[in-house]
Amino acid sequence: MTSPPNFPDTCPVPIAEGDVVLLAHGGGGRLTRRLIDRMIVPAFDNELLRRLHDGAVAPFAGGHLAFTTDSFVVRPLEFPGGDIGTLAVNGTINDLACCGAVPLYLSCGLILEEGLPMSTLERILQSMRNAAAAAGVEIVTGDTKVVDRGKGDQIYINTAGIGQVPTGREIDPRQIREGDAILVSGDIGRHGMAVMAVREGLEFEGSITSDCAALHRVVGDLLDDGVEVHCLRDLTRGGLAAALVELAESGGFRFTIEEADVPVDEAVRGASEILGLDPLHVACEGRLVAFVPEPYAERALAVMKRHESSRMARRIGTVAAPGSGLVVLRTAMGTERILDLPLGELLPRIC
Amino acid sequence: MTSPPNFPDTCPVPIAEGDVVLLAHGGGGRLTRRLIDRMIVPAFDNELLRRLHDGAVAPFAGGHLAFTTDSFVVRPLEFPGGDIGTLAVNGTINDLACCGAVPLYLSCGLILEEGLPMSTLERILQSMRNAAAAAGVEIVTGDTKVVDRGKGDQIYINTAGIGQVPTGREIDPRQIREGDAILVSGDIGRHGMAVMAVREGLEFEGSITSDCAALHRVVGDLLDDGVEVHCLRDLTRGGLAAALVELAESGGFRFTIEEADVPVDEAVRGASEILGLDPLHVACEGRLVAFVPEPYAERALAVMKRHESSRMARRIGTVAAPGSGLVVLRTAMGTERILDLPLGELLPRIC
Repeated sequence: MTSPPNFPDTCPVPIAEGDVVLLAHGGGGRLTRRLIDRMIVPAFDNELLRRLHDGAVAPFAGGHLAFTTDSFVVRPLEFPGGDIGTLAVNGTINDLACCGAVPLYLSCGLILEEGLPMSTLERILQSMRNAAAAAGVEIVTGDTKVVDRGKGDQIYINTAGIGQVPTGREIDPRQIREGDAILVSGDIGRHGMAVMAVREGLEFEGSITSDCAALHRVVGDLLDDGVEVHCLRDLTRGGLAAALVELAESGGFRFTIEEADVPVDEAVRGASEILGLDPLHVACEGRLVAFVPEPYAERALAVMKRHESSRMARRIGTVAAPGSGLVVLRTAMGTERILDLPLGELLPRIC
Repeated sequence: MTSPPNFPDTCPVPIAEGDVVLLAHGGGGRLTRRLIDRMIVPAFDNELLRRLHDGAVAPFAGGHLAFTTDSFVVRPLEFPGGDIGTLAVNGTINDLACCGAVPLYLSCGLILEEGLPMSTLERILQSMRNAAAAAGVEIVTGDTKVVDRGKGDQIYINTAGIGQVPTGREIDPRQIREGDAILVSGDIGRHGMAVMAVREGLEFEGSITSDCAALHRVVGDLLDDGVEVHCLRDLTRGGLAAALVELAESGGFRFTIEEADVPVDEAVRGASEILGLDPLHVACEGRLVAFVPEPYAERALAVMKRHESSRMARRIGTVAAPGSGLVVLRTAMGTERILDLPLGELLPRIC
């Protein structure tokens, strides 16, 4: 985290990458980025994919739609504040919302492991139903596959989603401008710590609940209220750090973040310390970072705070000069450090 | 296959179903149908999903889009005539085509198992790229997850797809009418037998190649040529039998099929006999069944035969009186038998 930004390419003892896929390739750190940048994007090479936004905004019938997909492999399946089903629905809704889209339709692709208790499947389907109903979206198409015992992990869920993007609305990383205020919609790291607490059987289990929530209504209100929004990114794998580093790098901007302004729940901070994790790198599932022009910052925060899921919204920084592609964290002690992605995984299978 | 149609509910020794998911729930037979009908459709209850078409045709921006999803868990990953990547692209394109849609965009959700050779991943991505390019669709959004060794089977792929449905076009099971001709676009069972041959190391391996192909151009030509098309269904899990039985049951029609007219490659027939399988139940990945009004049957066959993938198109039967929901197979010997779905899996993990 304190390593220079080019660490991954110069480290004398890097994690072996080359021949086989490592768990670290799925952790949301540098190796995930490299796998995507070096193998997947070049393979499917096209303009929409190259943008590496939360979803693709593509022309359709004279207008635009947003299209996104996410597979969920979280372990355990159920955790305080949600389960793999609520994650699968809300995660895909949030990707659409971050494209500025009104979410309309979801698909549900289930990969079930032989032996999964029907009662577990039923609970998870019910969670998906409830999350979709609460968000006002419909799960309109699906697919179910079963794999042999030992070739899955109870259940994996893929949800793809379609949303409608009003004409003229452009919310994506290319719209970020120097001087933009950087806002976060709530306290960070709760989802990852809630999952870790159950997984590790830690005694703070239960005191930390996942922040898993759908964010499309917050985004809708921001836009309806006339806030000019340049870019939105929901915080999942890799947490706030991954979102900021990716956006700073993609646009070549320097972001300045005030560490003390980043909201972190006390229980999350305590648990993070026990586990040696930095909440900046821990996944959220109901938080987003928003880039808005300075004059809209206060209004945006006021709108966010009207929603329970973002009542702790805060301004955390500013888009400074272009050129460096760095995220600079000003610590409470007044020192500066450069925020980077970890090389491999901190928390595998968190979503 | 020769059992009475209500066999699954009256069989005195059914496959245990109840507490846990069985491999048979993914085989495309009765248990798959029950899982979908009894748990998944009720959970997500909505009109579009209830139609159980290959995809959902949903209103969007004053017109209609088709939306579909499929996960691919085929084992082995590579087989004569294709691999999991070509299957994933063509399978989703075919679901869109069977909704009467022009396929436009695909998503790609990868679940990789730790230890997957990068070279394998690269070949599969290349196959996806080639299949998408050949079909003229773009893979515009994606997601990559990695699961621990022993929690996957090298690679699972989900593709969701979006297509555009021209205004007024309605191709779905509800349009089937008494008197419709039933056409199949080519010989059946090749995909399933090609996969089985590799999996079992049978000596006919190599002489049978998968029929995996994209069918949207055949469908497009049928419609451009003015053929009135009532319903299309691509033949995957459960083969031709599953498609026919589902459609007969959903509309309450009796279908009469001439067994001798169903095209089956000689090598496929031989291999099926060795393995004790009926080609009617074996998966295809580049075949569809079409329901067209009698006066259009000859023209539809002529159009299909212009395409390499459907040069063996044949008329195989007729939609007879409504009321029974049965598929009646007239055998070469002049006897009749009722075609039903097997209870459990014949060929697990074939797609």
